Amino acid sequence: MISRNPNLIQLSSSYLFPEINRRKQEFLLTHPQASLISLGIGDTTEPIPESIVEGLILASVQLGTRKGYTGYGPEQGMAELRKKIASTIYFNSVQPEEVFVSDGAKCDIGRLQMLFGSQVSIAVQDPAYPVYIEGSLIQGVKKIVFMPCRPENQFFPDLSHLQHTDLIYFCSPNNPTGAAATKKQLEQLVAFAKANRSIIIYDSAYATYIQDPQIPKSIYQIEGAKEVAIEISSFSKMAGFTGVRLGWTVIPEELRYEDGSAVRADWNRITTTLFNGASTISQWGGCAILEEKGMQEIAQLASYYLENAQLLRETFQRLGYEVYGGENAPYLWVRFKGQKSWDLFQHFLENYHIVTTPGSGFGQEGEGFLRFTAFGLRQNIHTILNRLS
Amino acid sequence: MISRNPNLIQLSSSYLFPEINRRKQEFLLTHPQASLISLGIGDTTEPIPESIVEGLILASVQLGTRKGYTGYGPEQGMAELRKKIASTIYFNSVQPEEVFVSDGAKCDIGRLQMLFGSQVSIAVQDPAYPVYIEGSLIQGVKKIVFMPCRPENQFFPDLSHLQHTDLIYFCSPNNPTGAAATKKQLEQLVAFAKANRSIIIYDSAYATYIQDPQIPKSIYQIEGAKEVAIEISSFSKMAGFTGVRLGWTVIPEELRYEDGSAVRADWNRITTTLFNGASTISQWGGCAILEEKGMQEIAQLASYYLENAQLLRETFQRLGYEVYGGENAPYLWVRFKGQKSWDLFQHFLENYHIVTTPGSGFGQEGEGFLRFTAFGLRQNIHTILNRLS
Repeated sequence: MISRNPNLIQLSSSYLFPEINRRKQEFLLTHPQASLISLGIGDTTEPIPESIVEGLILASVQLGTRKGYTGYGPEQGMAELRKKIASTIYFNSVQPEEVFVSDGAKCDIGRLQMLFGSQVSIAVQDPAYPVYIEGSLIQGVKKIVFMPCRPENQFFPDLSHLQHTDLIYFCSPNNPTGAAATKKQLEQLVAFAKANRSIIIYDSAYATYIQDPQIPKSIYQIEGAKEVAIEISSFSKMAGFTGVRLGWTVIPEELRYEDGSAVRADWNRITTTLFNGASTISQWGGCAILEEKGMQEIAQLASYYLENAQLLRETFQRLGYEVYGGENAPYLWVRFKGQKSWDLFQHFLENYHIVTTPGSGFGQEGEGFLRFTAFGLRQNIHTILNRLS
Repeated sequence: MISRNPNLIQLSSSYLFPEINRRKQEFLLTHPQASLISLGIGDTTEPIPESIVEGLILASVQLGTRKGYTGYGPEQGMAELRKKIASTIYFNSVQPEEVFVSDGAKCDIGRLQMLFGSQVSIAVQDPAYPVYIEGSLIQGVKKIVFMPCRPENQFFPDLSHLQHTDLIYFCSPNNPTGAAATKKQLEQLVAFAKANRSIIIYDSAYATYIQDPQIPKSIYQIEGAKEVAIEISSFSKMAGFTGVRLGWTVIPEELRYEDGSAVRADWNRITTTLFNGASTISQWGGCAILEEKGMQEIAQLASYYLENAQLLRETFQRLGYEVYGGENAPYLWVRFKGQKSWDLFQHFLENYHIVTTPGSGFGQEGEGFLRFTAFGLRQNIHTILNRLS
């Protein structure tokens, strides 16, 4: 038989969230009566709003009719949805042909890494969503540079000391810290990428939670970003589509390799060769989201979760903890100085029956932090506040 | 800016089916009145049957209710669907934990190649579905061995002369030749893999079209196959799910690396890290397919398309062409001796306004052949028969 792929051997035995689930199950075995509440994995809990569900139902009905049936769609996504994303999300600052619809940001990150291969070097925020690093390791990437993001630097890396890398992963609003980069910070990032001839992979999956009108919702609000940045995004946290699976990636025509050829052309080749488009039903659901009614409904969803965040924030502050995030993002990043994240995880699990996410799971700069998600039923949030107080 | 990934440079500029579409559009520009009928890309044309559509609708409705809403499902697929695949498709010869639900076979082939990395050698049937080779090239695989499959060897490779490779891609019923391997042939293949310590990646996406009860519908009907074979499959051609996106991959617990560790564990790691599960709606649709009513409905679908195949077969035979396939598969593989596939493609396009797939697009052994799909409306098949006769 063949040997194991050496790239896989370097990975830890388990991806973060399955490990959290394993510990949760283990606890439940010995405490079957415990009423656990999860503020762990960032999973949406509110039903999908009405007009969007109608879009999903209508698509399903159509597939059962001779007139409405469609088979394979374009691998890059339905023309109507690409157009709506370009106009509604980007106000036509990107073209529909630059938008590639996916079955979610996580899956597209995997494919993006196939696009760039094993020879590239990458920079990631520390802490960061583990998929950037683990997906790169699976591809055989050898050089990974960490960009510490701490309360002390307002969660924005010190670019003056950053080594050159080919790719820079940057997530804003950030998972896990909840920090949303300012326009000025993003201008620095774009200028740094230009000066260093790097490509930014900008993850805006939580942009819908930005309330401050001064904070950019897309990297393309920064002048010149189309020459240096790819943006990945998702309907998951925007419309409760975590299970429905729908996202997108923007690769601007201006983004070029050293030889002047378009990165977009290679992405098109990968997409058509190894992907077959997101589900037609999900895509019609996406179209419903981007209608006027759908956009109103998802704004209400974001408000609901941000009110949860506010309640949690106030409680943690009252208890004297150091709390970050939760204002333009659905995550709270709470520091417990001098303590270990996995110990804190166990403490909250055993004493309060609350599932959290240990900050160290996102990188060494996350040690001593816990991430709390604002996704959850309001009544559960109130129960948590009572348990904590 | 960074250089292009050298693995991508080796690919031809376009994947086969977009190229066919390009030529079709080019023809339509100069012949806007032409009523083209496509027997090219193998895309289903019949609506999704009633009970399965009901499953899709119900899932969509549930997502709009507080009680029925679910977010992320397990990355490996819903427990209920894994169980149904194991019982209904495999008669419990595989375990639910060995079944991983995907958003389609094409996407899973891409991820399987991440599993094995760039250092493996592969064997592919010639002709073959281009994704096996192109996906491997994208991963940086260097050694590819071709297994000629011709009418003269009953479309089954001569294993006595085959070099050792780590992986052997094998598709039955075959795309494009329509050949369905016999039990005896598959026994030879499994014995060869055992003797050579190779892993078979068995693509059974068209198994639903097998009518001959003597022909295995799964590689696991062959004794000992669980030690050497992965099976990838799909609901696409089974239930008109080409746009809905749903498939699965079986990795048996018995399948081991040289060091004795389970391939399944690494696949689980890849799946949880770079995939987030198929759409919940599609998965509930999959559950509906595997109910008794759904299975009856899809048997009728297969009959319909196979009747198309029979009509095309008879006509081609009457016209004196050499016709293969179409009896246990939805593809006809027609030889036009001494002619070039792309010339034949243009000939059928320009003279009969029929879009076909050039055999040479599947490998050099496909030169001189055209692939005709049996997917299509019956009235279009009759129109085609009239045009040809």
